[in-house]
Amino acid sequence: MNGGGDAPGLNAVIRGAVKYGVGGLHWQIVGIEDAFHGLMESPRRLQDLTMKTSQGLIHRGGTILGTSNRADPFAWPDGKGGTIDRSAELADAIRDEGLEGLICIGGDGSQHLSLRLMQEHGIPVVGVPKTIDNDLSATDFTFGFWSAVGVATEAIDRLHTTAESHDRVMLLEVMGRTAGWIALYAGVAGGADVIVLPEIDYDVDRICNTIRKRSERGRHFTIIVVAEGASPKSGEALPAARRHGRGHIVTGGAAQTLAMLISEQVHVESRVTVLGHLQRGGSPVPYDRVLATRFGVHAIDLIDRGQWGRMVRLRDGVVDSVPLAAAVTPPRVVDLDHPLLREAVKIGIELGAEI
Amino acid sequence: MNGGGDAPGLNAVIRGAVKYGVGGLHWQIVGIEDAFHGLMESPRRLQDLTMKTSQGLIHRGGTILGTSNRADPFAWPDGKGGTIDRSAELADAIRDEGLEGLICIGGDGSQHLSLRLMQEHGIPVVGVPKTIDNDLSATDFTFGFWSAVGVATEAIDRLHTTAESHDRVMLLEVMGRTAGWIALYAGVAGGADVIVLPEIDYDVDRICNTIRKRSERGRHFTIIVVAEGASPKSGEALPAARRHGRGHIVTGGAAQTLAMLISEQVHVESRVTVLGHLQRGGSPVPYDRVLATRFGVHAIDLIDRGQWGRMVRLRDGVVDSVPLAAAVTPPRVVDLDHPLLREAVKIGIELGAEI
Amino acid sequence: MNGGGDAPGLNAVIRGAVKYGVGGLHWQIVGIEDAFHGLMESPRRLQDLTMKTSQGLIHRGGTILGTSNRADPFAWPDGKGGTIDRSAELADAIRDEGLEGLICIGGDGSQHLSLRLMQEHGIPVVGVPKTIDNDLSATDFTFGFWSAVGVATEAIDRLHTTAESHDRVMLLEVMGRTAGWIALYAGVAGGADVIVLPEIDYDVDRICNTIRKRSERGRHFTIIVVAEGASPKSGEALPAARRHGRGHIVTGGAAQTLAMLISEQVHVESRVTVLGHLQRGGSPVPYDRVLATRFGVHAIDLIDRGQWGRMVRLRDGVVDSVPLAAAVTPPRVVDLDHPLLREAVKIGIELGAEI
Amino acid sequence: MNGGGDAPGLNAVIRGAVKYGVGGLHWQIVGIEDAFHGLMESPRRLQDLTMKTSQGLIHRGGTILGTSNRADPFAWPDGKGGTIDRSAELADAIRDEGLEGLICIGGDGSQHLSLRLMQEHGIPVVGVPKTIDNDLSATDFTFGFWSAVGVATEAIDRLHTTAESHDRVMLLEVMGRTAGWIALYAGVAGGADVIVLPEIDYDVDRICNTIRKRSERGRHFTIIVVAEGASPKSGEALPAARRHGRGHIVTGGAAQTLAMLISEQVHVESRVTVLGHLQRGGSPVPYDRVLATRFGVHAIDLIDRGQWGRMVRLRDGVVDSVPLAAAVTPPRVVDLDHPLLREAVKIGIELGAEI
Repeated sequence: MNGGGDAPGLNAVIRGAVKYGVGGLHWQIVGIEDAFHGLMESPRRLQDLTMKTSQGLIHRGGTILGTSNRADPFAWPDGKGGTIDRSAELADAIRDEGLEGLICIGGDGSQHLSLRLMQEHGIPVVGVPKTIDNDLSATDFTFGFWSAVGVATEAIDRLHTTAESHDRVMLLEVMGRTAGWIALYAGVAGGADVIVLPEIDYDVDRICNTIRKRSERGRHFTIIVVAEGASPKSGEALPAARRHGRGHIVTGGAAQTLAMLISEQVHVESRVTVLGHLQRGGSPVPYDRVLATRFGVHAIDLIDRGQWGRMVRLRDGVVDSVPLAAAVTPPRVVDLDHPLLREAVKIGIELGAEI
Repeated sequence: MNGGGDAPGLNAVIRGAVKYGVGGLHWQIVGIEDAFHGLMESPRRLQDLTMKTSQGLIHRGGTILGTSNRADPFAWPDGKGGTIDRSAELADAIRDEGLEGLICIGGDGSQHLSLRLMQEHGIPVVGVPKTIDNDLSATDFTFGFWSAVGVATEAIDRLHTTAESHDRVMLLEVMGRTAGWIALYAGVAGGADVIVLPEIDYDVDRICNTIRKRSERGRHFTIIVVAEGASPKSGEALPAARRHGRGHIVTGGAAQTLAMLISEQVHVESRVTVLGHLQRGGSPVPYDRVLATRFGVHAIDLIDRGQWGRMVRLRDGVVDSVPLAAAVTPPRVVDLDHPLLREAVKIGIELGAEI
Repeated sequence: MNGGGDAPGLNAVIRGAVKYGVGGLHWQIVGIEDAFHGLMESPRRLQDLTMKTSQGLIHRGGTILGTSNRADPFAWPDGKGGTIDRSAELADAIRDEGLEGLICIGGDGSQHLSLRLMQEHGIPVVGVPKTIDNDLSATDFTFGFWSAVGVATEAIDRLHTTAESHDRVMLLEVMGRTAGWIALYAGVAGGADVIVLPEIDYDVDRICNTIRKRSERGRHFTIIVVAEGASPKSGEALPAARRHGRGHIVTGGAAQTLAMLISEQVHVESRVTVLGHLQRGGSPVPYDRVLATRFGVHAIDLIDRGQWGRMVRLRDGVVDSVPLAAAVTPPRVVDLDHPLLREAVKIGIELGAEI
Repeated sequence: MNGGGDAPGLNAVIRGAVKYGVGGLHWQIVGIEDAFHGLMESPRRLQDLTMKTSQGLIHRGGTILGTSNRADPFAWPDGKGGTIDRSAELADAIRDEGLEGLICIGGDGSQHLSLRLMQEHGIPVVGVPKTIDNDLSATDFTFGFWSAVGVATEAIDRLHTTAESHDRVMLLEVMGRTAGWIALYAGVAGGADVIVLPEIDYDVDRICNTIRKRSERGRHFTIIVVAEGASPKSGEALPAARRHGRGHIVTGGAAQTLAMLISEQVHVESRVTVLGHLQRGGSPVPYDRVLATRFGVHAIDLIDRGQWGRMVRLRDGVVDSVPLAAAVTPPRVVDLDHPLLREAVKIGIELGAEI
């Protein structure tokens, strides 16, 4: 089963597990549709995952099993606006279906639920980490991240050509509410001039200085990559922008806000692009396909060796596993000492703050 | 010179003209930077366009000459908030530089200015049509259009995979303020479920019905392509949405507006992606490279034959030319009888209105 | 049914026909697998084409129905090395399945077989033109062509970057046995220096001169696009090359041959890339998706109006139809007066002959 | 300077070094054109690498400095068919130009030459590893590798769609003379059925069995990825194939050979695609851009700290450096115990041998 948001490579994990588990070990594998919904609803929605199912899956975006962002069996909607604990019922359903264990492909939240299912109801589980933001401490990289960075980098490439022709500030908002990895990697890969991250509140003056200095050097455009969770340094700046701006902003995201703050200081046209779900869709890049396949195979290996309660992960180029308990930790954010951040500064990228 | 917005293929036009004019006919060709700014400012900014300049240009997005959206010599900013007619000065500059004539790559507005320069100041001009929206009546297609459709179609492809996994309404806002060609072509090419155009005010009820009917058939997602100029049928709908919505919307565009109107009727999550300038950037697709090259060559041919005052164009697969005066006509919008619109209806695409 | 080779857009034709025929007109549509094999083998292989089948088809390369290059019911292999006429049997199978008529998506050969089925056995047929080489006289363009040009153009782009770094002659062999359209369009779109076509036997001396002259101008690389059917001017040249070359060549195609002929005259390293089936695979470009969809819809329209015996086509931007008999004509090759060929010469592309 | 073959990311290394060295540290950096040729020829060909040079470089394939495969100052062609040692002359030229040291971006061979220049002539050098085959022991990955894998994977994707429609064996030849990393990674990422590597001589019977068994399961196509250095198990097989085959093969590469060997046993059409230099060209993927940038920055850092005689590298996700002497080691080939190879077997990929 998948839990949480979509990520390119989910199908490749499923394919890897099926190719090895069904094709190699002759097991029977069943997919649960739409996270836990497939087991909690009546009739139950399960799919036999056969060698035939696995055909053509490796390059396919999305997930054939569907997923869900909010499917907590310990706090399931009761239909009256509240929630009830239906976890025992879920555990019964799992046993009733004759499932010997559960492979849960999901993020922090999903792994936490798996762990509780195991601890409180004795359901054997194995985890596969999934987070497009790459913010799970337990694994160096997860599938989907480089695909998202690919979409964002291609967008920066496109903005570059048109920005150069037009003397403009181009802002690109990318995913990253608490961790700015996509913004950092795509910003470096795309040759952005400014990158603002959720981890570093930005000083608008520094950014405006960059725009002005570039202009003085004959570079009349500036490309700014904005993580969706980035915000200005001073709390005061924001209301001011909104008050003196062109109106009340509700839907304006981080890039829109920065565009407005810039427009108060510099006379230059700016354009905002919000990539949104484009970053989650489409065919995974080869890196993610290989990693996802490996994760799928290793999940089967864990089960084959009876090592329940663990999550596969990538560490220093090697795919191995950690206890699920260790996997459920605070998200890994961009550290001020992270080498790539230091290198970004060395090649002249403005981060909106002295670091 | 280029006038108006950026479009993939501008460099290919320049390359085609230089390869033929300089390489084949041994003329000297000079590029004017940033539309008329390069001639109106002091020092003037002109570039020798040589065979060397033309190297590697065919696949390069943007324009090596730069461009400008607002460069009207008949109404030039006077620096005091008003405008003055500096067209005579421009004509003098052209003669002073020894330029025998002008190739103007631009849209409706730019061609109109060229025509006036010729009529009022005797400057020989030749036009090359440029409009990413494909809304020039005089030409069947212009370069840049299929590139923009390509970006939008790829975006729909990506949204498809993630929408399927998540049971969502995905709205994609594409360019097209008055003409919905990009939305129509990309919508058909991407397999959109709903397309809304500036030419057809939409009825939100019809769109919500489509979402509901799809859901009943087990398709829990809907892809909607929204031209930026699309708006709801009744004027009343909009203020209501804004009043009852989650706040005052200023920056929300057409897709945001539609998302809000839908959310008033249907309980489904929706996500908005705004492509913005991504549609203008990047390498032109082969169709646009070929067409742009041909336009560049034909512009030189017109001059070679002394046929000033004409604009090249594509009609029924043939590149020929029309008088500039004929080229400056009201924009071509999507006609209710356009075959592709009719075909869109036949394959079940909802247009937000009975047509 | 599909006949002949693969082309990007086949699935989009099927989808267009199903969306309109099944979704719009509530017909039942059945797909025949692997050209006529699906009807000639026992058990017969037919697929119900439903709205569900049509999901996700528009961007998918290949064809869900499969195809076959050699499936002539009038000369079916008899298993003893000869052939027998099994067309009456095929016609019976069609009637036995209750099929009211046949939509045949195929090239010249397939349309010819359809026509005979109609004329000799009274099977109502409608044709959809398919030829990746774009060599059907009856239609201006077919789906798949621009996708193939796209693959070839991207390859030229890639070769450009590496050729520039290395001072090399890069030869790219593209499809086109009798008609050089892919080579011509991709060569212009990719900025090739030399293009050789099946229609124009090339003079190796001219090509070597181009390589030398470029080198004198400081351009130490040359990109040559070679249609697979291109051959040198003089019949004598080839044996000579083979005799004095590095050995007996059997598998060497057109590009390999030209590379050897060049190496006899110019001291420069050359590298050959043969795209082969890459040009037939992958997702169709938007142009082809739109055209294929329109063809599918128009095929249904023809049937709906009882206009059997016709083939849909694109002429001057309009999709209409012609009698099948008129569709079966000699292939359209690149005419020496074709505008794009003339323009290629004007921008300095060497064609291996004075034209 | 660059030495050896082209690789996507060379320009990004240059850009990274210039952005930090020139932009950050205010050094002067000069590029040597075409490997050592730029210093050995008269007039010398050097380029000032300024902030302006570095613009737009990150996404550009090839190298603005040019490169050369054969530029050994210790064994320079003497023009009479032999070689002479001109290394002292080169060292003099370096000192004469006032260069304080050399950054050499190159493979095993180039780094070896650098080391000798330092050891024998006292020229301070710093190395940046470059090998598209990823076969340098000292570094986990080099830039260019994932770009090449990307080109190969996209090719497999394309072949998949057309193979499925046509019941064919599709062979794709990719780079890798002694190390099969590209074949292995792209084969896994593309979902190949068979992968043959230079490290494992293949048994044709096993491959033919795979083709037959797939066919029995209704999969009438097989995708085979062939590293250019792969060869059949028994030395006898090859001559036999050539003798009984369709003629004398000279130019046929590894894929052509395997296709012939298969055709002797299985009656199925096969098609060969040879990617060749496509794998070296084009824009680097984000992974390679980031890595190349980091390598460029670290090379400057080494110099800044006076750590001459070292080569930057990536180890366990960290960019650091090793002594040049340690960098010049036998190439890293695919080990029979490599996890990805084991995983490939687990998901049913045939490697042509029992491992």
